[in-house]
Amino acid sequence: MADLSTTPPLTRASVQAAHALIAPHVHRTPVVTSQALTLLASTPRADLAGTRFADRAATPARPKLRLWFKCENLQRVGAFKARGAFHAVARLLSDDEEHGLPAHIVMPSVSAPAKVAATRGYGAHVVFSGSTAAEREVVAAEVVAATGARLVPPYDHPDIILGQGTMALELQEQVAEMMAPSKNPYRRVGGKTKTKTKTTLDAVMTPCGGGGMLAGVALACEGTGVRVFGAEPSFQGADDARRGFAAGARITEVSSRTVADGLRTPLGAHNWGVIYGRRLVKALYSVTEGEILAAMRLVFERMKMVVEPSACVPLAVALFDEDFRAMVEREAGEEGWDLGIVLSGGNVGTDALVKLFGDKEGMET
Amino acid sequence: MADLSTTPPLTRASVQAAHALIAPHVHRTPVVTSQALTLLASTPRADLAGTRFADRAATPARPKLRLWFKCENLQRVGAFKARGAFHAVARLLSDDEEHGLPAHIVMPSVSAPAKVAATRGYGAHVVFSGSTAAEREVVAAEVVAATGARLVPPYDHPDIILGQGTMALELQEQVAEMMAPSKNPYRRVGGKTKTKTKTTLDAVMTPCGGGGMLAGVALACEGTGVRVFGAEPSFQGADDARRGFAAGARITEVSSRTVADGLRTPLGAHNWGVIYGRRLVKALYSVTEGEILAAMRLVFERMKMVVEPSACVPLAVALFDEDFRAMVEREAGEEGWDLGIVLSGGNVGTDALVKLFGDKEGMET
Repeated sequence: MADLSTTPPLTRASVQAAHALIAPHVHRTPVVTSQALTLLASTPRADLAGTRFADRAATPARPKLRLWFKCENLQRVGAFKARGAFHAVARLLSDDEEHGLPAHIVMPSVSAPAKVAATRGYGAHVVFSGSTAAEREVVAAEVVAATGARLVPPYDHPDIILGQGTMALELQEQVAEMMAPSKNPYRRVGGKTKTKTKTTLDAVMTPCGGGGMLAGVALACEGTGVRVFGAEPSFQGADDARRGFAAGARITEVSSRTVADGLRTPLGAHNWGVIYGRRLVKALYSVTEGEILAAMRLVFERMKMVVEPSACVPLAVALFDEDFRAMVEREAGEEGWDLGIVLSGGNVGTDALVKLFGDKEGMET
Repeated sequence: MADLSTTPPLTRASVQAAHALIAPHVHRTPVVTSQALTLLASTPRADLAGTRFADRAATPARPKLRLWFKCENLQRVGAFKARGAFHAVARLLSDDEEHGLPAHIVMPSVSAPAKVAATRGYGAHVVFSGSTAAEREVVAAEVVAATGARLVPPYDHPDIILGQGTMALELQEQVAEMMAPSKNPYRRVGGKTKTKTKTTLDAVMTPCGGGGMLAGVALACEGTGVRVFGAEPSFQGADDARRGFAAGARITEVSSRTVADGLRTPLGAHNWGVIYGRRLVKALYSVTEGEILAAMRLVFERMKMVVEPSACVPLAVALFDEDFRAMVEREAGEEGWDLGIVLSGGNVGTDALVKLFGDKEGMET
């Protein structure tokens, strides 16, 4: 593994250094807005299929939310993970001055076929493992022993965290540009012209699986005044970070088959240190399988963007989670919040889409 | 109907005037590139499901194509039609100085539910008709008689043609910006650095149904050196423009249930005059149902964009039509072409997606 004693400190400055290193190799993905979804987020509990509204109290929250989407589904390899991976490899190269490294990728054998095919398409050698972290680590250790390869872990390593955090530096810059009074698409929301000129987001929310992206984004926002939130699926206990956060102790075992297949892993130790230990994340929220799919359907139909289920979890929180929405109403008041939402990836094949959207009745929640 | 005697002449300058009129009301939709699809287009007959390669001669064409996609699926109302409609209405307003016009929209009763819902969502009153042009015109005449409304025809009117053409002005500007040597994503294609700095497309291709978009784009390209091509489905004779072009006489009746539901209409008379009469379109090509769906699948999986089947017809031609590809190889040679492709709309609901991608075996070609 890349030597922990030589990794940069987990600070905003290190995220900026990581950005300088990887910028030539990754896309500065676009930030897009949506009047339709912003209106929906700012309307009391729109009654969509699969959401929890029927179970809820009679008075829904009335938050004002203006949404800014960071489109990591348009990132190279179709997901934010290119950032951390390029950073980890760039740091290995600067250690060793190697070039044209062969890549062995350990993936659970239940991985989506589109992901396996894409990984092979980029020239990597795919090695299958079981689904748990322990099973994956055994196979990775075997590959390291057999080939002499260096291990780049998927999420729980400072180089990965710093790489993922770069998306939030771009998001902050891009939103500042887009908030110029002549350009801001939300300058007239709800019929009133906003008089104050803002240049920053109030908050940003990312999906949370292993927690590398959430921790990196939290570092990139430290000291900026931008609040950071995490979003998880609740199905079969996949909301381990939220529960660990509440209990004050990291949960290390998760076994969930949530539709958000990128978020089935428990929070890593380094990530926990940033998210909880340093209190750089304000809170975590979780949503049901039906809410994730309802959000995904909206991104397809209203934004015309292909996203994977994991990418839709923060939007599902913003639209459907009454705890989050009541908190925003309370904290943001009349002025509302400009909320950055990370659309983390778009690796979902058309066959998987058919399964996700075609079998509504049989869906587990 | 808006009075034909007062409509501007069908020239590039009139398209520019139309753009000034509608620019505040429509999106300047992004132009995006795709290394993956450009590589595929520049590779001899990739063997994808549903395409015609098996029937073809042994030596496939070897064109070099660099693709630039104009994303009208991200246009207001989810399709390019906002341009022509806003232009026609803006011209009605400047005739009459009316404001807040009520809108009655005549749609075939077989229209996609997502389109009907979206139309109603924008506040319009939807009136259903049969599927043929004649049936639609009868219902429209009844609405005009009952309400005193002015008719804005869907595609065969100078105001509509000029409005649709505005997309090509933007495409030309945007590609010129993106072709700057420091930015051009295709500056190294096939391992060779291109030495000449280009600033213009060689060609542009649009879908062709009623022909308003194709005619407008042809006007916007007149005198610029950009060649214009049209793309149609071949299923059940929906390639009426291609056949009419070959025979030298407009075909006025089409009855096709092609999956490209926006392209089931025959070419309009004004459009025919521009496309064929003035020879502003160089040629038309047609593709099978399977090729359209294969292209749609690629746009979803590689570009992460939601597009409707009609929007994928030009890409299908570029990837799969050996007549088109052989012509490009012949005309463009080693240098290849920069080809603009209009992704015309994204109005396809998730239920329709399930039907399109879920029933491969039963698909008619």
